[in-house]
Amino acid sequence: MKFFLVAVSLLLSVFSFAQTPDEVLRSIFSDALTDRSAEENLRYLCKETKGRLPGSEAAARAVEYTARALREAGADTVWLQEVRVPRWERGRESGKAISSVLGELKLNVGALGLSVGTGTDGITAGIVEVNSFEELEKIGREGLEGRIVFYNRPVDNTLLNSFAGYSGAVNQRISGASEAAAYGAAAVIVRSPTHAEHDYFHTGVVRYYEGDHGIPAVVISPVSADQLSDWLDRDPDLSVEIISDCRNLPDTFSYNVIGEIRGSELPDEYITVGGHLDSWDITEGAHDDAGGCVQSIEMIRLLRNNSVRPRRSVRAVMFMNEEMTSTGGKVYALEAEKNGEKHYAALESDRGVTSPVGFTFSATGERLAALKELEQFFRPYNIYYFERGGGGSDIAPLGALGTMQIGYIPDTQRYFWYHHSANDTFEQVNLREMQLGSAAITSLIYLVDLFDL
Amino acid sequence: MKFFLVAVSLLLSVFSFAQTPDEVLRSIFSDALTDRSAEENLRYLCKETKGRLPGSEAAARAVEYTARALREAGADTVWLQEVRVPRWERGRESGKAISSVLGELKLNVGALGLSVGTGTDGITAGIVEVNSFEELEKIGREGLEGRIVFYNRPVDNTLLNSFAGYSGAVNQRISGASEAAAYGAAAVIVRSPTHAEHDYFHTGVVRYYEGDHGIPAVVISPVSADQLSDWLDRDPDLSVEIISDCRNLPDTFSYNVIGEIRGSELPDEYITVGGHLDSWDITEGAHDDAGGCVQSIEMIRLLRNNSVRPRRSVRAVMFMNEEMTSTGGKVYALEAEKNGEKHYAALESDRGVTSPVGFTFSATGERLAALKELEQFFRPYNIYYFERGGGGSDIAPLGALGTMQIGYIPDTQRYFWYHHSANDTFEQVNLREMQLGSAAITSLIYLVDLFDL
Repeated sequence: MKFFLVAVSLLLSVFSFAQTPDEVLRSIFSDALTDRSAEENLRYLCKETKGRLPGSEAAARAVEYTARALREAGADTVWLQEVRVPRWERGRESGKAISSVLGELKLNVGALGLSVGTGTDGITAGIVEVNSFEELEKIGREGLEGRIVFYNRPVDNTLLNSFAGYSGAVNQRISGASEAAAYGAAAVIVRSPTHAEHDYFHTGVVRYYEGDHGIPAVVISPVSADQLSDWLDRDPDLSVEIISDCRNLPDTFSYNVIGEIRGSELPDEYITVGGHLDSWDITEGAHDDAGGCVQSIEMIRLLRNNSVRPRRSVRAVMFMNEEMTSTGGKVYALEAEKNGEKHYAALESDRGVTSPVGFTFSATGERLAALKELEQFFRPYNIYYFERGGGGSDIAPLGALGTMQIGYIPDTQRYFWYHHSANDTFEQVNLREMQLGSAAITSLIYLVDLFDL
Repeated sequence: MKFFLVAVSLLLSVFSFAQTPDEVLRSIFSDALTDRSAEENLRYLCKETKGRLPGSEAAARAVEYTARALREAGADTVWLQEVRVPRWERGRESGKAISSVLGELKLNVGALGLSVGTGTDGITAGIVEVNSFEELEKIGREGLEGRIVFYNRPVDNTLLNSFAGYSGAVNQRISGASEAAAYGAAAVIVRSPTHAEHDYFHTGVVRYYEGDHGIPAVVISPVSADQLSDWLDRDPDLSVEIISDCRNLPDTFSYNVIGEIRGSELPDEYITVGGHLDSWDITEGAHDDAGGCVQSIEMIRLLRNNSVRPRRSVRAVMFMNEEMTSTGGKVYALEAEKNGEKHYAALESDRGVTSPVGFTFSATGERLAALKELEQFFRPYNIYYFERGGGGSDIAPLGALGTMQIGYIPDTQRYFWYHHSANDTFEQVNLREMQLGSAAITSLIYLVDLFDL
């Protein structure tokens, strides 16, 4: 590995290029901003494969479609990689508060992924509102047994980093059920981890602790959460009925979809660019993460269409089952290890497809310093953030094998308006913003490969 | 004027603050990201005063509402400033292509603001597609007389600066009618100046040259423009019927709305922050420019609510009639001149209310250098662009009197999806992005005033 870039001006003067890197980037960006195939790919995934839960027919259609799209984009080879996935199905679901004082209040609730169900009769019980696991401890089993725990801690809107806000609230969704079950709770209702104050619920996975058989877990829209909290203030004795007739089914198989351009000089070294193909069942999953898949396919098309022959082999990977148990990323890394493949770098786009801001790198020291120097090529595009940071959950297993992970960073301020909700639609993606991202990703991969970064 | 900031670290160590500037900014941003009154103000302007064309009832309601909102935000004084405005009314409008070969094609067209009408019978004529005024010259009167000129030059999507793309196409809309009339054309159809490929038309003003009595001018949605162009390829002899029963009425009066916080040290120096209150008749005008008005009102509220007492008098101004003849900005500057007011600086927010990127300043030399130093305070908020550049059309007349103009710069990549179209709705504004802008604007004004920049 050579970290040439600190002397890039020297390098640029010594080497001769058919096109300078600046010209290549200009060509990639212009192509991305005028071609329409990315729009069509996004439209298809959103409108024709809505609710791409692993193991679903929609996911199977998405596998088939993206394999075709990768071929059309110009991949030398396209193949599927079998991935074992859990199956989980949402059933009829509803919620209401019942108060002898106030009457009935409809609650907009939805099951969390992998949650156990309530059965068709549902659960009706008294309710305890808390904002943390510590509060559960204070209240104790006496106050919680047989009741429904209502986690209502909102996202901290004052945190500038929207992912930090999300992270500060999401433990209620992930671990809240097992934490409450330890005190004998009957079910949990979790405030949707979102910055928005709208009436969409935002689902996501619940993870029961080892050995916990699980209690039903639902999320509630911010509007319903505020209403329920208000009603509880006025009638602490109200009860809530939750029906969530979801169920876990036996595992099945699905696929990662991989398209590759064979490297011209170092074909046995690999660079991976990926997003995840699965989505939650209730959404088109446009920003999360059809957009990341489309950008990965675009990377293939943009390299081909702009005559960039990468030195290393470059792959676009549509990972399956990121949302539930992330088996797609694990299988991909296991296969790489089994085949003795050298994975040079891996990039993931799974933070929405809004305007690009920059990239994060798992690298340190001299390599990180050289990567930061790449910022000079992106200045004309207002892409300025080149910092140490994470990659993404699908490429983390590759990272564990020593591969440098790269995170694609867009402007995430509005991401959690969409994330895991029915509001994450094709219409919420601005195609120009998405395509600026496609061009940025392609350009970065080109430069990392060119300069041995 | 002292340009202290190049030694800001020294300054910060010498002066003692109840709160450091960093703390004040933190407080302003946290407030903006959690308070809900901006959301309510935006909702009211979009939903209750949709189509705020100068002289309309909707505009009158917007004047009344924002005057009240400014008082509630904490302005010391609120007043209205009379502004003479043109009146123009859209009528019934429709378009269709009629081909003996292909049949009929409905065209999504809409009158340009201030356009003369076709009357209820409309105009039916042959059509000539061009991409520039130069093409008109080549074709000449013989080919154009009595026909409808169809300007179909699209926005150049490859230009990174979306306003540059818009500027490269908009002369067809502004001057196309008079240019075509010089060759005897009967009417013009103009491709909407937008990066989007959707079926909304984007209106805007037509400006007839001095002495030109005017021919009818309509815009056409990008989808309809592409269809019409395709039909013309297949049947150059098709004719088009345009009905656009709009009309110009006698001038009337409306108002600028002004709210002021009196300065604590230099009350006779003024800093203005504004947006424009009028919108096109067919739109909620959320990004253009209810959002800019809401941000200006927020500036008053955020200063008050965070105990920032500005040294100079600070005004939030809702300018009337930016879209048609910009008389609001002119009246404001004339009054300032008449009253001998010293206007220290003026900022306009009229580029949409997406995530903030930075500011442009009309300053040069030492003053510009000092203003650029402010970037250090905005680093925690990813606001990085501090450059020389324009302000906005409402504050340009103040600029002509020597006032420094400041442009508020958000990420404008998706702005022209909304601009002047029915697609510019409340739902297209992300409230967090708008409020990051409100906080950025308020913070900048606080710092400019504090450091005498």
